[in-house]
Amino acid sequence: MSEGQIRDCKAVLQSMSLIVKQLDDVIRKLDEADIKEMLTKIVSADRIFVMGAGRSGFVGKAFAMRLMHLGFTVYVVGETTTPAVKEEDVVIAISGSGETRSISNLGKIVKDIGSTLITVTSKENSTLGRLADTTVILPSKTKTDHDSGGDLERSMRGDYTRNLPPLGTSFEITALVFLDSVIAQLIAITGASEAELKSRHTNVE
Amino acid sequence: MSEGQIRDCKAVLQSMSLIVKQLDDVIRKLDEADIKEMLTKIVSADRIFVMGAGRSGFVGKAFAMRLMHLGFTVYVVGETTTPAVKEEDVVIAISGSGETRSISNLGKIVKDIGSTLITVTSKENSTLGRLADTTVILPSKTKTDHDSGGDLERSMRGDYTRNLPPLGTSFEITALVFLDSVIAQLIAITGASEAELKSRHTNVE
Amino acid sequence: MSEGQIRDCKAVLQSMSLIVKQLDDVIRKLDEADIKEMLTKIVSADRIFVMGAGRSGFVGKAFAMRLMHLGFTVYVVGETTTPAVKEEDVVIAISGSGETRSISNLGKIVKDIGSTLITVTSKENSTLGRLADTTVILPSKTKTDHDSGGDLERSMRGDYTRNLPPLGTSFEITALVFLDSVIAQLIAITGASEAELKSRHTNVE
Amino acid sequence: MSEGQIRDCKAVLQSMSLIVKQLDDVIRKLDEADIKEMLTKIVSADRIFVMGAGRSGFVGKAFAMRLMHLGFTVYVVGETTTPAVKEEDVVIAISGSGETRSISNLGKIVKDIGSTLITVTSKENSTLGRLADTTVILPSKTKTDHDSGGDLERSMRGDYTRNLPPLGTSFEITALVFLDSVIAQLIAITGASEAELKSRHTNVE
Repeated sequence: MSEGQIRDCKAVLQSMSLIVKQLDDVIRKLDEADIKEMLTKIVSADRIFVMGAGRSGFVGKAFAMRLMHLGFTVYVVGETTTPAVKEEDVVIAISGSGETRSISNLGKIVKDIGSTLITVTSKENSTLGRLADTTVILPSKTKTDHDSGGDLERSMRGDYTRNLPPLGTSFEITALVFLDSVIAQLIAITGASEAELKSRHTNVE
Repeated sequence: MSEGQIRDCKAVLQSMSLIVKQLDDVIRKLDEADIKEMLTKIVSADRIFVMGAGRSGFVGKAFAMRLMHLGFTVYVVGETTTPAVKEEDVVIAISGSGETRSISNLGKIVKDIGSTLITVTSKENSTLGRLADTTVILPSKTKTDHDSGGDLERSMRGDYTRNLPPLGTSFEITALVFLDSVIAQLIAITGASEAELKSRHTNVE
Repeated sequence: MSEGQIRDCKAVLQSMSLIVKQLDDVIRKLDEADIKEMLTKIVSADRIFVMGAGRSGFVGKAFAMRLMHLGFTVYVVGETTTPAVKEEDVVIAISGSGETRSISNLGKIVKDIGSTLITVTSKENSTLGRLADTTVILPSKTKTDHDSGGDLERSMRGDYTRNLPPLGTSFEITALVFLDSVIAQLIAITGASEAELKSRHTNVE
Repeated sequence: MSEGQIRDCKAVLQSMSLIVKQLDDVIRKLDEADIKEMLTKIVSADRIFVMGAGRSGFVGKAFAMRLMHLGFTVYVVGETTTPAVKEEDVVIAISGSGETRSISNLGKIVKDIGSTLITVTSKENSTLGRLADTTVILPSKTKTDHDSGGDLERSMRGDYTRNLPPLGTSFEITALVFLDSVIAQLIAITGASEAELKSRHTNVE
């Protein structure tokens, strides 16, 4: 990379403001019935499995860790001691495009087993969206919105792959904000005390 | 968990709004000089190493993956083929408290090697904050602010461990928004084209 | 599990002896031409990618780590900063059955890209065996051999899944012994000195 | 790397034979009382945690996966949904040198919690060996034995770091053979049927 001194960091702050503005827009577009259904399925689940590839996978792991703190029996698909999924389990798939090959393949297996599949995605009409029992749509700016943007947005070239929506509206950021808010409501529902939550946080790190 | 039907998902939407509001506050409190220094060090780096534990580790991995798409030589500390850190390398530590034991220990080793350490944290006056050559502070609400909050915030019990700031102001969310915005500026600086970015995205998943 | 005191550990020692005996048998059944071809492809490779699922994946990672110590440019498929595979790259798949679904799917993608695929497996006539440019067969005891075994072997029920050959002849053990021996020859070929190897071993752990 | 054609693969086969010979030696040097103690603690454990760094970590994960197949409640330290270790838990540390910094630090924490620590190592008189309630020693060839070796052994430069014993006697290979044999005995003890084992193997991969 070039050795040049960076003149300023204005684009960092502008980009953060843009993300905040777009997050604010997303909240108004959420379908409350779908979220309620997702919460009901999580609270009733015997065991929860979380899966996602790439950056969506990291968001899924951040969510799974908090579910564990809350006392849920939760596993990340692909980790060492994750057991076989059974019919009565709930599997949560995180995928911006809803088309990530490996996760779509696993989604089909999950439905063949007869388990409950919840998809968190930006595309309702996608493979994982259609497979799921419950789909929560986290809308991203559309390609057209993006193209009408100014220099900043153009410079982001955010939608550079099918899996990575425009940076200004990063699916992964929206998903993390949404899933952490799901955790907030689950804390309220379960009435988990601070001491209980603390007692489950890893003490060997 | 209880089998009960969830009545509504108001707390999810309220929590999302709260997060957006607090992100907006954070932007105004950022130190531009520190961010400029971080950008300069990243752009000049021969090789970049990213490290973090738990949820901060996932955010670090999401950042590292994008740096790779941009063409940087970047490694995640602890992954299989990550080589030895050398004096001329830049190591970026992500830690909300700045005190995570394993990451602090690694930070000391990094400084013993003579490498450049950048810390992204919410606590300037912390072990990792003091060790670093450059520290970017992402302010979180203080405990006092938190306690003055309403029912929602109290129900979140967000600061249930030293490492997990109040959910409403989750350090991890702020860090992901900040680091994705750093990526946006790096795309602008390097002039990376969409085709270049796409060509580096994993094609075996 | 039962609280009972264990009477002895004879079965542990007997099982170890059985594994040693079977490893000894395997050596005599190896195809030297295939191994030579694998070595030639590794030494000529620009970049090496290693992939495997479950326990074979762990063996692959142990191999990839040593290749890194030797100075090869090597990545594990699925890790955070692993770039896109290109035509000139060599991909090594580890799979006992040669049929592991996710790895077979990736093997097809690798061949579509036009990269070189090396499969290490116990089954030549398997999906990954047929896809590969070079296949190294590490023979395991057959089902019939297994059934003719004594009490110890029966008690092992080692071939309890398609992916896990009889414990006494664990594919993963054979693969680790084989791949560590490949490393030994690569050390000899490249003339790597102890100091060079040491200098690449992670210093941040 | 050099483009040269590899003349033969004799060193691969010789190295495999050497490993087999040394494994055979190790079996005769094992302390049966320690292994019996380890088995008793595993069978009585409420929950088992496995930890290791680098290649020893991969061996630990391979062991943990099989314990899960057997129906044990088992976690890998550092994975996403691994809960806090409690006094009544058993923690198994895998470390060739017994001195791996991160694992030694965790071993101290484990003993502070009051949990049971089992160390599998090649060095009894090491930090992790001294900390443990039970230590199983898997002897490696000594430095002197190594130096008296022929060309093959010298070319291996196997003991190139403190953590990586001579390749010919790789601690990781010995540990994998030992731990898979522990699994064989546990299958016998628990009387697990093939169907039970199969039913727990991951079905989403």
